[in-house]
Amino acid sequence: VLYWLQLLGVAAFAISGVEASRGKSPDIVGAFVLAFATALGGGVIRDAILGRPAHAFGDANTLFAIVSATLVAMWLPGAVHRRIGSPLRVADAIGLGLFNATGMVTALESGVVTPAFAVVLGAITGSGGGIIRDVLCGVMPALLRPGEVYITACLAGGAAGLLARALGGSMEVTGVTIAAVTIALRLLAIRFDWKLAPFHRDEV
Amino acid sequence: VLYWLQLLGVAAFAISGVEASRGKSPDIVGAFVLAFATALGGGVIRDAILGRPAHAFGDANTLFAIVSATLVAMWLPGAVHRRIGSPLRVADAIGLGLFNATGMVTALESGVVTPAFAVVLGAITGSGGGIIRDVLCGVMPALLRPGEVYITACLAGGAAGLLARALGGSMEVTGVTIAAVTIALRLLAIRFDWKLAPFHRDEV
Amino acid sequence: VLYWLQLLGVAAFAISGVEASRGKSPDIVGAFVLAFATALGGGVIRDAILGRPAHAFGDANTLFAIVSATLVAMWLPGAVHRRIGSPLRVADAIGLGLFNATGMVTALESGVVTPAFAVVLGAITGSGGGIIRDVLCGVMPALLRPGEVYITACLAGGAAGLLARALGGSMEVTGVTIAAVTIALRLLAIRFDWKLAPFHRDEV
Repeated sequence: VLYWLQLLGVAAFAISGVEASRGKSPDIVGAFVLAFATALGGGVIRDAILGRPAHAFGDANTLFAIVSATLVAMWLPGAVHRRIGSPLRVADAIGLGLFNATGMVTALESGVVTPAFAVVLGAITGSGGGIIRDVLCGVMPALLRPGEVYITACLAGGAAGLLARALGGSMEVTGVTIAAVTIALRLLAIRFDWKLAPFHRDEV
Repeated sequence: VLYWLQLLGVAAFAISGVEASRGKSPDIVGAFVLAFATALGGGVIRDAILGRPAHAFGDANTLFAIVSATLVAMWLPGAVHRRIGSPLRVADAIGLGLFNATGMVTALESGVVTPAFAVVLGAITGSGGGIIRDVLCGVMPALLRPGEVYITACLAGGAAGLLARALGGSMEVTGVTIAAVTIALRLLAIRFDWKLAPFHRDEV
Repeated sequence: VLYWLQLLGVAAFAISGVEASRGKSPDIVGAFVLAFATALGGGVIRDAILGRPAHAFGDANTLFAIVSATLVAMWLPGAVHRRIGSPLRVADAIGLGLFNATGMVTALESGVVTPAFAVVLGAITGSGGGIIRDVLCGVMPALLRPGEVYITACLAGGAAGLLARALGGSMEVTGVTIAAVTIALRLLAIRFDWKLAPFHRDEV
C-alpha cells in the first residue's frame, strides 16, 4: 500500500512540474524534464547526501508513473483540468508526507546522519524536487517565498517522528507518525489558508 | 580515439560556458567557473546518481582541456571568434553524443539503474552541464525553452541504444549507436533548423 | 581549535544566508533553508563529487551552529546589526579559508582526484554554499559577478598548497598554508578594495 501511495505522490509531483512549465510554453521534452526533475530531485539529493546510488533510478514503476502522469497532464482537456486542482493538491500533500517519512527513516537507518539532521534530510527529500523545478523555471522557489506551510509541515512531521522514537516507537511507527503529521498539517494549512508571517526586525 | 573525441567535447562545452558568460561581463575567474560547470556538470550529476566518485576529477587531461579551451575562448580575436560558431556547434554536438553514450553505457553497466532510466541518465550526462551553466547565469535554461532539439537528440540516441541492445548488440555496438544517432540528429536539426512545437491544450 | 574555527565559519555562512534572504522577506522557515543551504552546500557538493556521505550531516555541533547563528541573525536589533558587517566578513573569510583547506586536503587524501582538481574541489567547498544561496534567491551568484576576490582567493590558496606539497610539506603544513593564504588574500582584498577587471576582447 505504502509503495503505491508513494507512486501516487511521484505522479502528483510530476504533474506539478508540468503545471509549472505552462507559462513558459515549453515543448514536450521540456515538460518531461521538469516532470522528472520535480518527481526525482528530492530523492536524488537525499541519496547523494547519504553517499549511495539514487534509489528511484532502479525502479521501473517510478519511471512509468512519471511518464504517464506527464502525458495525462499535458493532454488533459481544459474542462477536466480546471477541476483537478484540489485532488492534485491532496495527492501532492500525500506525496510530501511519504517522501518526508521515507527520507527521514532512510537517513536514521543509514547511521551516517544525526537524528536532527535526519529531520532536515526528510524535508530535503520532500521539498527538493519542487525547489529544483522552480530554479529550472528561472524563478525564486515558491517554497521559499513567505507563508506557504510546506517545508514547515515536513519539519513538524520530522519533529513528531523524533518524539515517537524518543518514546520507544519502532521504525514503522516513526515513519507512519512522520507521514501522518506532515499530511495532516499540510492539508489543514491548505483548507484553512494558514500562512507563516515574514519575520521582522525593528527596521529593514 | 573515443577518449580524444570526448576531450574535444569537454573543450566545446567549456567554450560554451565562456560564451554564455559574455553578456554578464564576468572577470576571468567567473568565466573559468562557468567553463568548469558546463564541462563537468553533467558527468558529476550522473556519478552522484550512480553513487560513485566523479570520474572527471581523476583525469588530468580533462582539466587541461577545460583550461586551454577557456583561455582560447577568452582571448580569441573577434574576427576569428565570429567564424568559429559553426565548428563550435559541431564540436558541441560531438560532445553531446559522446557524453550521452558514455553516460548511458556507464548506467547500464552499473547495475543500479533500469534500462529506461539509463536513457534518462545519458540525457542528464549530455545536457546537465548546459542546464547548470544557464542556472548559474540566472536565466531559464536554453535547453528547456521551446524547440531546441538537444535533449531530444539524447533521448532518441538512447532509444536507439536500447534497440541495439534488444537486438543483441554488445556494449560497444550500443555505445556507438547511441553516439551516432545523437550526433546525426543534432547536426540535422541545426542544419535544417528543426524545432519542436510547444505543446498546446485547448486553452491556456 | 581548527574544529571550532570551522564552526565559526559555518555560523558566518549561515548568517550570510539569512542576510541574502532579507530583501525577499521570507518567513522563518525560508530563512532557515537559506542558512542551511549556504552553510552546507559547498561541503555537500564536495562529498558528492568524492562519492561519500556528506560529512556535515553526521555532526550535531554543525547543526547547532547553523540554528543558533540563524536565530541570532533574524532577531538581532538593528543597531547591533549595522555594526556586525565588518566582523561578519572576517568570520566569513575565516570560514572560506578553512573550508577551502579542508576541501582540498580531503580531496588530496581521497586518492580519486588529481592534485589540480583538488584545488578546484577546495574552491567548490569554499564557495559552493554562497553560489547555491544566490541561485535559490533567483539572482545571478554574486561570486560570479565581476570583481569580487573570493573564488580567486580559494584558487590562490590552493596553488600555495600545491607548492607546499611540492616542497615536501606534510598534509598539516599544506592545510595551514592553504587556509592562511586564502584568508590573508580575502581580508586584504576587502581592506584595500581589490577587484578583478572583467576580461575584454577587442569587441563585444
